[in-house]
Amino acid sequence: MRAIELSYKENQPILDLTKDAALPERTSNQLLIKVEAAAINRTDLVAIDTGKLPKGNTILGVEVSGTVVESDSDVFPCGSRVMGLVNGGGYAEYAVMSLGNAMLLSDQLTFVEGAAIPEVFLTAYQTLFWLGELGPNQSVLIHAGASGVGSAAIQLVKQLTSAKIFVTAGSSDKLELCRSLGADVVINYHDEDFSKRVLTETTGQGVDVILDFIGASYWEQNLASIAYDGRLILIGILGGTNIKELNLMDLLEKRIAIKGTLLTPRSDSYKAKLTKEFSDKTTSLFETGYLKPVVDTVFSLEDVENAHQYMRSNKNKGKIILKIND
Amino acid sequence: MRAIELSYKENQPILDLTKDAALPERTSNQLLIKVEAAAINRTDLVAIDTGKLPKGNTILGVEVSGTVVESDSDVFPCGSRVMGLVNGGGYAEYAVMSLGNAMLLSDQLTFVEGAAIPEVFLTAYQTLFWLGELGPNQSVLIHAGASGVGSAAIQLVKQLTSAKIFVTAGSSDKLELCRSLGADVVINYHDEDFSKRVLTETTGQGVDVILDFIGASYWEQNLASIAYDGRLILIGILGGTNIKELNLMDLLEKRIAIKGTLLTPRSDSYKAKLTKEFSDKTTSLFETGYLKPVVDTVFSLEDVENAHQYMRSNKNKGKIILKIND
Repeated sequence: MRAIELSYKENQPILDLTKDAALPERTSNQLLIKVEAAAINRTDLVAIDTGKLPKGNTILGVEVSGTVVESDSDVFPCGSRVMGLVNGGGYAEYAVMSLGNAMLLSDQLTFVEGAAIPEVFLTAYQTLFWLGELGPNQSVLIHAGASGVGSAAIQLVKQLTSAKIFVTAGSSDKLELCRSLGADVVINYHDEDFSKRVLTETTGQGVDVILDFIGASYWEQNLASIAYDGRLILIGILGGTNIKELNLMDLLEKRIAIKGTLLTPRSDSYKAKLTKEFSDKTTSLFETGYLKPVVDTVFSLEDVENAHQYMRSNKNKGKIILKIND
Repeated sequence: MRAIELSYKENQPILDLTKDAALPERTSNQLLIKVEAAAINRTDLVAIDTGKLPKGNTILGVEVSGTVVESDSDVFPCGSRVMGLVNGGGYAEYAVMSLGNAMLLSDQLTFVEGAAIPEVFLTAYQTLFWLGELGPNQSVLIHAGASGVGSAAIQLVKQLTSAKIFVTAGSSDKLELCRSLGADVVINYHDEDFSKRVLTETTGQGVDVILDFIGASYWEQNLASIAYDGRLILIGILGGTNIKELNLMDLLEKRIAIKGTLLTPRSDSYKAKLTKEFSDKTTSLFETGYLKPVVDTVFSLEDVENAHQYMRSNKNKGKIILKIND
């Protein structure tokens, strides 16, 4: 089959398109899927940079959409259109997906849209509701609001709760997208200190939950923005990993929880539980169009390196997709 | 009434025994209690040192036991023996207690024992189960195992779960106490690096929950001791407040949650919910002696300053109590 394989020569990563990769082997609790589209994720870039491949798979890609071609399942028989997380192997013509990770892709959505859903919407759901414990009338600050996870998070908060949504982004068109998805207060981090704006808008109380992809460079502003009993959820570290100083008394007095998380390395049983709950709550919202995957650009499989470069430039609004079968 | 009142002269705190303090005023959802015993807590020392008094009350003391002398409640009629948290006002002959904070004191327990229960057992329960989400077959590291909260936490884990209990303490008699209460692995922090011992005993996995009263000086060893998906609960900062460096990638990769907490400043509704759940799960265990408050020393009300000095010396095993009515 056709696939993008990662190898290293003199410690330099090489992504090669091969036409004769071996078909992945399926167990009875997995589906074999003819992949139509796969999404690019930052975890792919981390894997390339560090050489730590998900489950050792030399084919990258942690989410796909496509058609089931081998199955022992009544829920997902051959011919089903599906989307879901995979443990690597997504940048390929065929991939195996655990039954627990599979979701039916409704006819209203294209395969490209389907590939844009699992990772970012599941991450947003998990961080907002499982880790963030966001209550219906609370408030949330979503950084990088126009990113894949950010745009998914805004929509989920808007459709599933009445919480107030604050977002940050770095350009007016990104902020415009955030507003169109449901953000209540949009903040251009180039123009103002987001913590001051958050405190002004919340009459000094701060927000209950922060979803942060930035890390060190936002640390102090995040702690200033958070309410008593607030939850700071760390999903990424685009702004650095090293905090120079942390005053534990701040955490005690404001009773703050700081929770780090990554979705990709988690167990299949965790992902299955998350997929089930997410799917139960959102399938009809995708069918009716209240929830929409945000797709920025579609690249061909051959063009994967340009797709990666584009993600590294941080210019995308929403997901970057690889179309496998043209 | 007799009470210990806190004042400041030239910024120096003064604790005076007065004989004519005003009786506290009771509302219909409070009890008036003739106090028999009050416990010393570290929050009292913090209040003295910072001048930040709980609810502005110049009489310290956040937990008491005694007899109800005024009540509108059928559950706690006049004459009931009770114990519970109060919002300051404990170092006195009479105190008011919110109905939600009151617990019946069983006849098997003395008033001195009753005063030794609420703060430490409620804090231990809250941090272990609400914040720490300790599972039945998980593992927990309890620092300062012979302290008030530490000794309560060991017993609660032992009686309510089958989790494995690691403790640290600084002397062999403290460790002996911990073992007698149910600790599985006792570690003298003077003799060894606790994180190495924890990793050895858990075949490198670490513990699921850490209850920490120490803070900065234990930070790195705590992060080294914690398992994937672990919860580090910060209750105190006896070892300093300032972390010099924090690598956020550690939090992400190990999916660690760090949660700061203090019980005293929380709302009455929070304390009432905690008191109710705690009381439901533990009343019979106190009656049968499976749970036992650990009392170190009993001082008279007049001797409050010596009681405080004793707590500051960190020599106590279990609670330090003020007997109000001799």
